[in-house]
Amino acid sequence: MRTLLVGQSGGPTAVINGSLYGVLQEATESGAFDRVLGCRYGIEGFLSGMTFPLSSLTESERARLRITPGSFLGSCRKRLPSDLTDRIYDKLFHRFEEEGIEVFLYIGGNDSMDTLDKISRAAAERGSSLRCIGIPKTVDNDLMHTDHTPGYGSAARYIASTMRSIASDTDAYRVKSVTIVSIMGRDTGWLTASAALARRYEGDNPSLIYLPEIPFSEERFLRNVSDELQNRDSCLIAVSEGIQNQEGIRIGEKEGVYHDAFGHKMLSGAASHLEGLVHDYLKIKVRSFELSLPQRCFSPTLSLQDLTEAEEAGRFGVRSALRGESGQMVTFFRKENSPYSYECRLFPVHQISNKVKYFPREWVCEDLAGVTEDFFSYASPLIQGDVLLPLKGGLPDYLSLKDEKAY
Amino acid sequence: MRTLLVGQSGGPTAVINGSLYGVLQEATESGAFDRVLGCRYGIEGFLSGMTFPLSSLTESERARLRITPGSFLGSCRKRLPSDLTDRIYDKLFHRFEEEGIEVFLYIGGNDSMDTLDKISRAAAERGSSLRCIGIPKTVDNDLMHTDHTPGYGSAARYIASTMRSIASDTDAYRVKSVTIVSIMGRDTGWLTASAALARRYEGDNPSLIYLPEIPFSEERFLRNVSDELQNRDSCLIAVSEGIQNQEGIRIGEKEGVYHDAFGHKMLSGAASHLEGLVHDYLKIKVRSFELSLPQRCFSPTLSLQDLTEAEEAGRFGVRSALRGESGQMVTFFRKENSPYSYECRLFPVHQISNKVKYFPREWVCEDLAGVTEDFFSYASPLIQGDVLLPLKGGLPDYLSLKDEKAY
Repeated sequence: MRTLLVGQSGGPTAVINGSLYGVLQEATESGAFDRVLGCRYGIEGFLSGMTFPLSSLTESERARLRITPGSFLGSCRKRLPSDLTDRIYDKLFHRFEEEGIEVFLYIGGNDSMDTLDKISRAAAERGSSLRCIGIPKTVDNDLMHTDHTPGYGSAARYIASTMRSIASDTDAYRVKSVTIVSIMGRDTGWLTASAALARRYEGDNPSLIYLPEIPFSEERFLRNVSDELQNRDSCLIAVSEGIQNQEGIRIGEKEGVYHDAFGHKMLSGAASHLEGLVHDYLKIKVRSFELSLPQRCFSPTLSLQDLTEAEEAGRFGVRSALRGESGQMVTFFRKENSPYSYECRLFPVHQISNKVKYFPREWVCEDLAGVTEDFFSYASPLIQGDVLLPLKGGLPDYLSLKDEKAY
Repeated sequence: MRTLLVGQSGGPTAVINGSLYGVLQEATESGAFDRVLGCRYGIEGFLSGMTFPLSSLTESERARLRITPGSFLGSCRKRLPSDLTDRIYDKLFHRFEEEGIEVFLYIGGNDSMDTLDKISRAAAERGSSLRCIGIPKTVDNDLMHTDHTPGYGSAARYIASTMRSIASDTDAYRVKSVTIVSIMGRDTGWLTASAALARRYEGDNPSLIYLPEIPFSEERFLRNVSDELQNRDSCLIAVSEGIQNQEGIRIGEKEGVYHDAFGHKMLSGAASHLEGLVHDYLKIKVRSFELSLPQRCFSPTLSLQDLTEAEEAGRFGVRSALRGESGQMVTFFRKENSPYSYECRLFPVHQISNKVKYFPREWVCEDLAGVTEDFFSYASPLIQGDVLLPLKGGLPDYLSLKDEKAY
């Protein structure tokens, strides 16, 4: 049986199933395969015999799959050994043969591309005709050699929408107040920067934005906040969870670990630490919180552009494999900012895995507490458009392997 | 000038401007007033001469106002004195006369109804013909003598949507894990209960729900979590920020206050405390976070039913005042659950203010860690329907007093 195998790996996003949908539809429409098989729980589940027959999904189930956040097939964080003669590869290629796999697509981020790279090179060494293509996904937008990554646009849109809502809320009082919101991205500032998209006019909230690429100074932070409060009642701040000082020590972690009466470990975290600073040194009403998990899985604010591109990445991956390509990742090449246009291309996955794309230093404002217009031009096209979700009982009608229909 | 005065007070919601829109439209359409005036920053701003000419808003601005979260006019938390002969009432009624106010509508929760009650009684004592009507709003849903309160439906829909997204996300791994989400409502469990609406089938996540009305037992909690993990990998828990033990001590506050190296106060909070318990006693991967501010101001998940009712409450308030009513709050009377139908009524505001409507004990499951079908029948109609938001730059196009147009 001519089989296309597809897996999902690493942290979920709101559009990772959009790519899965693209793979499934393109593979079905191509007529080149007898079936499309999904790895349950990534390559790890596949190794232990766990698969899901994606071809069996009905058209209406596929439509629901497209807008379902999280990894429909399940995910893993397994790292394959660097030694391509390791026995695990024997087992893996035995499984590939057993299932008649001709094409393997892996949807994931940095670590997943490492897996794909190794499998692709192991295939070459074994003289296997298996074709391996990587489909990029990550909310962090930190993959090299691609303009951006599916998943980022929807996460950025969630963050910007949330910050805009919070700005409306905190504007309500005449009392001076500071609100600090911690945003995902321990090493790169792409997500935190997207908070700036919430601004409706020059000087609107969030008025201060701190990225992990810029060494953080507590003195400068307190001065920034103080200055802002000269001209406004409410100061809304976006801060990356990963901000660190000049010495590379993460803010909110440098005091180490706290224990409560039960001996529980308590880490203060960046936002909570800064809340303490504002409270103690500026004596201003202050609160902080983390946007946390919803950043990578909230679907009501899906970016239509992002979802469309996620699907296209999946489709392009299938077409590339059918053209005989292997060992490549699908990338996005931006042709123009305005009107926005792009095309999908391929790039050797070996040169992508295990690298990180940082936020460009030249897109950070001079005061180190904001981002420039260049970032707006870059990110704005990626957050455009609403996706109308099918509703059930007033809520998005996601597809789940645990649904009523027994698989 | 025959003037209708309207103010907003207390914590903002996602639909409080929906009520303001209803007031403005009904007052305009009635032809009974020369102008509609808004209190800037509630009664406090009005006292110091701060108003906003709502009549001057164009039709397209009004359409944007309707879907803007937060208090468009600004809010306050001022409590008026109980002594109705206090000089502040002289000042207030002087201001009313100065502006030609015939009708005063106040959109708010418990404390705001207290303000309205006092002004209404002060008017009666002074022989003033001022008519005062309260328009209910609160995400907490804790006002007495009304089936529910505008603002609750949208907050509940945000919470349920978020929990459904998180459930999709946490299902991705085969690793045992616990996710604890802290939800607003220090004294009442209405919001936390709404997390249950996220379930797609019996036993779906969130599988455990803890309300502040039910004395919390840490032993029972750990047993609940342990039991859940027998049958599932991922256990998603909704917990009210206000849960307290048998002695009435709030969970996460009983250890008191922590200080970090800088002497900053650190409160662990309910979710964070429970995270520590799971970590220490069950040795399971666990994380916790708070939904925080977005619960009361996130608009992309507005409930159409809630927004419609918020507007209707404002319109009904104006019509009631025009019929000569005063000292009343608009209430919602539910005629049927399915198909859902209701009508607006009035109830003396004096009997509403300063009371709290708790979550019914009989709607809590026997295991004290969930809610019954009765709650689903009650809450489900309130979270129905999407609201299509006007977009600008890919994000909701809210109306703000700080917008380009100078007011």
